[in-house]
Amino acid sequence: MARVSQEHLAARRRQILDGARRCFTRNGFHATSMQDVLQETGLSAGAVYRYFRSKDDLITAIAMEVFDDVGSAFADAARAEDPALPDVLLPAVLCRVLGRRSDTTPALALQVWAETLRNEELASRMREGYARVLSSWIKIVHTYQERGLMPKDATAEDVARALIGAAQGFLVQQALFGPLDPHVLRTGLRGLMAMDVPEPTH
Amino acid sequence: MARVSQEHLAARRRQILDGARRCFTRNGFHATSMQDVLQETGLSAGAVYRYFRSKDDLITAIAMEVFDDVGSAFADAARAEDPALPDVLLPAVLCRVLGRRSDTTPALALQVWAETLRNEELASRMREGYARVLSSWIKIVHTYQERGLMPKDATAEDVARALIGAAQGFLVQQALFGPLDPHVLRTGLRGLMAMDVPEPTH
Repeated sequence: MARVSQEHLAARRRQILDGARRCFTRNGFHATSMQDVLQETGLSAGAVYRYFRSKDDLITAIAMEVFDDVGSAFADAARAEDPALPDVLLPAVLCRVLGRRSDTTPALALQVWAETLRNEELASRMREGYARVLSSWIKIVHTYQERGLMPKDATAEDVARALIGAAQGFLVQQALFGPLDPHVLRTGLRGLMAMDVPEPTH
Repeated sequence: MARVSQEHLAARRRQILDGARRCFTRNGFHATSMQDVLQETGLSAGAVYRYFRSKDDLITAIAMEVFDDVGSAFADAARAEDPALPDVLLPAVLCRVLGRRSDTTPALALQVWAETLRNEELASRMREGYARVLSSWIKIVHTYQERGLMPKDATAEDVARALIGAAQGFLVQQALFGPLDPHVLRTGLRGLMAMDVPEPTH
């Protein structure tokens, strides 16, 4: 009985988040009201407010759900003895995350980023999520270095930031200019990684 | 006399754009009204509306001003016989563009990107600006390839997109998580370019 109830709670929460995401994708955060979310989900105010007190709560929950997907994908890679190279790993994680919501995620990501400029709770949760992803990427870069794939004098944290940035920039381009096959990110990174340049100087 | 008048017009336009940028940075696009811009600049409605019909016009003008800076910096590099490598060129352009407005540009960029999702005029101008930057970057990548710095079978357009993405992602991180020295982007890209990986397969 308790288990059915738990499942029911999770399904109801899912229903609300999916409805809110549809509203946000269609009209943006600012033009969407809690009333719109009630209409979209067909639920009563009491049913929705039991899970989310405000539109800001919904925005934060949706952002954190995506960030948890991203975070666990890179945490898995950080535990691997022989993680895939960036040109394979980044597109694979993007596919895993976007696969579930490819129609909405890049545009939502842009809105969430802009929203962090005025929503301190969201900004703080985003900083935590980003710190986790950065720490996974630093481990992955160290593994590349231990395996002789990258010079040891490259600052792992800076490489990690550049790689996270490449994924963020790919999302920006998808949101602004339409769908882009993740293969584009793969061949683009591959070209960069295959550059023939002198070792970094100390 | 005509020359003084031209200078006056340009100075007035500059005054309005600077005031609007301060308002947008402080309160965001949505919470800023034309009335706020009038107050900030100390100008009359008639004086401001002569230059900009609406807040959307101001947003588009501010975005295009930054995009023109970026576009001409990369167009210069595309004309060079021996353009700097990405780890030098990207941070240099970021410094050139951010140098004039480092306090505001990353946060404004995020707001502009989110705004393109609901403002078709802005989206269309952004697509044009982006196409120009992409075309410069494709030329730069071809030059790297001709100079033997990058395998010829790397797709120049994909590499160009990855590099533009790295800069966009760097702006995202600056806006969300606070100032980052452009040197971070330099050493990060350098580490990636110095990876020791097999040539891409056909």
